[in-house]
Amino acid sequence: MKIRIVCPIVGDWRVNESVEEANQFKAPDTDIDGVGLDKGPTSIESIYDGILATPYILDRVIEAERDGCDGVFVTCFGDPAVDGAREKVSIPVFGGFRPAALMASAICGRWSVVTILKEVVPLIRDLARKLGIENNIASVRDIDMPVLELDDKAKMQSRLVEQIEKAVMEDSAEAIVLGCTGMLGLGRTLKEVLAKQGKQVPIVEPTAAAIGFLESMIRSGISHSKLTYPFPREKERVF
Amino acid sequence: MKIRIVCPIVGDWRVNESVEEANQFKAPDTDIDGVGLDKGPTSIESIYDGILATPYILDRVIEAERDGCDGVFVTCFGDPAVDGAREKVSIPVFGGFRPAALMASAICGRWSVVTILKEVVPLIRDLARKLGIENNIASVRDIDMPVLELDDKAKMQSRLVEQIEKAVMEDSAEAIVLGCTGMLGLGRTLKEVLAKQGKQVPIVEPTAAAIGFLESMIRSGISHSKLTYPFPREKERVF
Amino acid sequence: MKIRIVCPIVGDWRVNESVEEANQFKAPDTDIDGVGLDKGPTSIESIYDGILATPYILDRVIEAERDGCDGVFVTCFGDPAVDGAREKVSIPVFGGFRPAALMASAICGRWSVVTILKEVVPLIRDLARKLGIENNIASVRDIDMPVLELDDKAKMQSRLVEQIEKAVMEDSAEAIVLGCTGMLGLGRTLKEVLAKQGKQVPIVEPTAAAIGFLESMIRSGISHSKLTYPFPREKERVF
Amino acid sequence: MKIRIVCPIVGDWRVNESVEEANQFKAPDTDIDGVGLDKGPTSIESIYDGILATPYILDRVIEAERDGCDGVFVTCFGDPAVDGAREKVSIPVFGGFRPAALMASAICGRWSVVTILKEVVPLIRDLARKLGIENNIASVRDIDMPVLELDDKAKMQSRLVEQIEKAVMEDSAEAIVLGCTGMLGLGRTLKEVLAKQGKQVPIVEPTAAAIGFLESMIRSGISHSKLTYPFPREKERVF
Amino acid sequence: MKIRIVCPIVGDWRVNESVEEANQFKAPDTDIDGVGLDKGPTSIESIYDGILATPYILDRVIEAERDGCDGVFVTCFGDPAVDGAREKVSIPVFGGFRPAALMASAICGRWSVVTILKEVVPLIRDLARKLGIENNIASVRDIDMPVLELDDKAKMQSRLVEQIEKAVMEDSAEAIVLGCTGMLGLGRTLKEVLAKQGKQVPIVEPTAAAIGFLESMIRSGISHSKLTYPFPREKERVF
Amino acid sequence: MKIRIVCPIVGDWRVNESVEEANQFKAPDTDIDGVGLDKGPTSIESIYDGILATPYILDRVIEAERDGCDGVFVTCFGDPAVDGAREKVSIPVFGGFRPAALMASAICGRWSVVTILKEVVPLIRDLARKLGIENNIASVRDIDMPVLELDDKAKMQSRLVEQIEKAVMEDSAEAIVLGCTGMLGLGRTLKEVLAKQGKQVPIVEPTAAAIGFLESMIRSGISHSKLTYPFPREKERVF
Repeated sequence: MKIRIVCPIVGDWRVNESVEEANQFKAPDTDIDGVGLDKGPTSIESIYDGILATPYILDRVIEAERDGCDGVFVTCFGDPAVDGAREKVSIPVFGGFRPAALMASAICGRWSVVTILKEVVPLIRDLARKLGIENNIASVRDIDMPVLELDDKAKMQSRLVEQIEKAVMEDSAEAIVLGCTGMLGLGRTLKEVLAKQGKQVPIVEPTAAAIGFLESMIRSGISHSKLTYPFPREKERVF
Repeated sequence: MKIRIVCPIVGDWRVNESVEEANQFKAPDTDIDGVGLDKGPTSIESIYDGILATPYILDRVIEAERDGCDGVFVTCFGDPAVDGAREKVSIPVFGGFRPAALMASAICGRWSVVTILKEVVPLIRDLARKLGIENNIASVRDIDMPVLELDDKAKMQSRLVEQIEKAVMEDSAEAIVLGCTGMLGLGRTLKEVLAKQGKQVPIVEPTAAAIGFLESMIRSGISHSKLTYPFPREKERVF
Repeated sequence: MKIRIVCPIVGDWRVNESVEEANQFKAPDTDIDGVGLDKGPTSIESIYDGILATPYILDRVIEAERDGCDGVFVTCFGDPAVDGAREKVSIPVFGGFRPAALMASAICGRWSVVTILKEVVPLIRDLARKLGIENNIASVRDIDMPVLELDDKAKMQSRLVEQIEKAVMEDSAEAIVLGCTGMLGLGRTLKEVLAKQGKQVPIVEPTAAAIGFLESMIRSGISHSKLTYPFPREKERVF
Repeated sequence: MKIRIVCPIVGDWRVNESVEEANQFKAPDTDIDGVGLDKGPTSIESIYDGILATPYILDRVIEAERDGCDGVFVTCFGDPAVDGAREKVSIPVFGGFRPAALMASAICGRWSVVTILKEVVPLIRDLARKLGIENNIASVRDIDMPVLELDDKAKMQSRLVEQIEKAVMEDSAEAIVLGCTGMLGLGRTLKEVLAKQGKQVPIVEPTAAAIGFLESMIRSGISHSKLTYPFPREKERVF
Repeated sequence: MKIRIVCPIVGDWRVNESVEEANQFKAPDTDIDGVGLDKGPTSIESIYDGILATPYILDRVIEAERDGCDGVFVTCFGDPAVDGAREKVSIPVFGGFRPAALMASAICGRWSVVTILKEVVPLIRDLARKLGIENNIASVRDIDMPVLELDDKAKMQSRLVEQIEKAVMEDSAEAIVLGCTGMLGLGRTLKEVLAKQGKQVPIVEPTAAAIGFLESMIRSGISHSKLTYPFPREKERVF
Repeated sequence: MKIRIVCPIVGDWRVNESVEEANQFKAPDTDIDGVGLDKGPTSIESIYDGILATPYILDRVIEAERDGCDGVFVTCFGDPAVDGAREKVSIPVFGGFRPAALMASAICGRWSVVTILKEVVPLIRDLARKLGIENNIASVRDIDMPVLELDDKAKMQSRLVEQIEKAVMEDSAEAIVLGCTGMLGLGRTLKEVLAKQGKQVPIVEPTAAAIGFLESMIRSGISHSKLTYPFPREKERVF
């Protein structure tokens, strides 16, 4: 089984990190490779950024199917280009939101998202409404750090711990979804830090969940519905 | 007051028709002009088409604000590029769905959409969920005609009458939203045809509703919330 | 176009203020006049007050249609008599809640109402449920001032600023609806005060929204659905 | 325990029938009497009719409390005047909708209403939304008979059987609520007729449910919340 | 009329207390007796406890029908075994949740539950979802006391007052449901204590509500729907 | 990785079939074994059957954890004993409903369940409500065949095709969930049969989905939340 990660930004460094992360969660017979974009934003923190990246993501997904990949993970929590890509290909395509939100709904009653910035909260609420699981969300919190600062892992971690505790204590969250696919390599560490403080709450990592959904769908021989995402009609398109 | 219509497809003919249609519903002090796209699809009937058009729509909306327009109507029922455009500009921006859906909710309990093709129904349901008014929808029906066949006005009209009657009789719709901004010049005719058959049901036309929302917001001095649609951060974007 | 404002209380002073307020938001070809009630309460702050006013509001709406008005605005946020009046006439009729709630839903994800008194909050929640947009509400707050004290504009303004800030900071409201049509002449001032403090949040004023909905519907030739609000049957009614 | 039935129409005959009906469902220590209106409509089949009756219903409810009654049943499925009356008195007040809808929700998953006329369906849907149980409703059907024709019991019964069967077979209703308090003396008969045809579905009669709720609340010493329905403030009201 | 209380734990003392409590709320022609379990947990504070008690509760309910009882109240707020028991018998069966939740929905807009322990909150939320009234819940709070400590009535009462006040002031609850059937003999006392502090909020006691629902249904001749809870098919079951 | 299938009925034959089925969907490093019950029903087609099986399922799940299994699949679509088992163990436990419902929600907008018998439909609707995804369900249909007749594979298949077509054509389902874990070995066949008729709709098989969820969770190191499913308190339990 061959899964392609599409890192929807320019710059190669994130591609490698994403593939490494994904490799920790994959089955032994799964091969994962990754590609980035030549053009597009350096991070996605708005609908606008997602729009800029979309045509290039689309190309990468179509290319992945042509390359014989069995599934594609567009590694961004905002699911940019995902629904359009599903129209163009037959192989399963996921961004970060859907798998994480559904996995969280599988293991508890109400869960919180902890994301990067207050300004992406409305976008995440919209995704939750579209998926039909809005009532399962206890809260959407943020750590007030843009993507390009997430390299400061110590700061990211301490802020995540702080917001996770608030989500559990103040919002009655029963599980946590990490709301940015750039929050890499953190699930286990967070678990340990929280455990030391006597707290136990599942941390759903979008990369892990996405790889799991893809593997499961590929083994089951199913993909997204072509009744929901039909192939676009033939017509003149001028470029 | 100056409103710009962005016709999100290539080809000039639709621009003129759209402006003419809009002029029938405008206030006397409103000036409406229109622009089309140089590149993009010739019609929008899928998420993919919307994606292809999006970067060019975005340019047109930004240009409209620079030209001193007070508001923009992206004349497509699927609201392509609308949320991203709202991030980039301060003037109000609407597609066809939001105003029509809210106007219909203002005048009845449950209403139906009659759109062009079965394949766009999931997309319309998603827009309804995002807007939070899904429970006000009695049904989403289609006339099984692609956009580029809507020139056959007689056929379009007879199919619309047929589906409107079904929506009222079988789905208990109390009002109808025309689910494509290409269904031009039809509100009054449909009303008369239905009235002759002893039926009275309000027909909400997206163009009329959009012009109304824009005029009302411009006169009130409000626009979309910058807490929902903040300006995208400065960052490197490679093109 | 001729719009009649029905001020659903006794006392003439509010009629003039309401018409003046409405005139600030109207199109050039719209004529707005106003009438008050001869009998009824001096303010509406309960379902009971609304009930007392209802028969007299009804008379005023029927009279407006007879006088050739094209639409009616019953200037109270609680929408008293509106649904019954819609049964009796063909011209569009709005109170303050529906247009403001729908306008707010058009420009953001989740919004808050700031109203006069804690005791009207359940009534407002009921209106939101009926309209099907309850999930778009972040909170309903109050300034703890009865209608007849709203003359103290300085106090009203400072309390509004306080509650608006709480709605934005604590409840994540992305827009604000002023929850009383007696909160007159405030939209611009509030905007400036908030802007000085570096805060930007759209303030939806019910009068502005109602005039906008009426103008839009009248120009489009539509009104409320007679399938939702049919003419009452002929029958004996004893008075 | 003393319960007063307020029959919200003019004409005495319905008062007696309603009291008789209620007496079949009451506890031995409950005394039930009834009053009608001197002024008002002869039947309630619209929001308008409810509005006309409302001031007179209000008087009757206030009078009931003054007379030492422990609870009031306003015998109409549309709950006219009920919320306003709850503000004015401390004793429990119910119309027909709330108790029947909640009783039905207690005994099955999804239930249907069978009411008199298509034109009251939107009104019933609004009541369901306000009560927060809209999703428990499988359908709202009607027998196409106005209140004043319900004297033709044979016709009413056969049409009820027909619609109940459709509700069960086509809409998957698991229980039926009779959607008019004028459908008197029918629960047992309908049950037998349906049983003969091998069908078993609970029939919730609004009068039985309302008496049950009142008795239960009176014995428990609780009433509607004064936080939801506070006493109206003292103020000038001109009549 | 004969109602059987099934106390779903081992130990007789609770049976007597429960019957005494119930007797305070019953009609004069209602006879209430009670039975406990020979085997099972000594209290129910988890899904697991409910599961352990379930087969024995089931036996008791079947026995009650055989003994000629007209209805059964399984006196636990978690409704253990109730849906399964409804399949096996024809007489009405209630636990504590459904009647209390529906009674609270009858008297206010939004209400809070105050229960024993944080760990049963998810279970109560699930019951609310199943019943379709989740949106009527303002909050679910707890007093942090296990069932077997509820004998300390002074402590229980002071903690209840504290949480009820928070529910009203912070969560805008308009009524309170006591979320454990072991909170016996408290409704009136709580009311007095709260009244002394100038607070008035209805306290819904599950035992009172359950007896009321049973009496009402028995007098009306209705029970739970056999379309929702059909008799289990004949088949081999090995024990 | 070691997954244990608990077949919640008596009789060994189903155990083997279930393990065989599961083996078709597993990763290469997953070992799956299975156990049945010594006591319990021979099939589960009611809440009552689920209750009878529950204590024995619980034992099997606890045993599985003791045996070092990494996860458990209780192979029944009604999720019997699952929530209670989650309280008792730390390893992930799934029945058939949750994984299938979430997988279907991942690949389309609205999906239908096709189950065995009309009488289990209310039970499935309850599970959907609890999971918070009720609005994603287009319909719940049945093939009118009890579990013990599913051996007639030809009949089962032709009835499934018939109901799947109705779900797609009449209810606008965009994907299908097989609503019984006894519908074994059918996904591919159904797909082919439907494809021959020019129809393409994803068929979600609960066994495939459950194995996928378990593998994904085990690899990610997460399990159900102990805030939702805490370990039951120590207390006296008499047996």
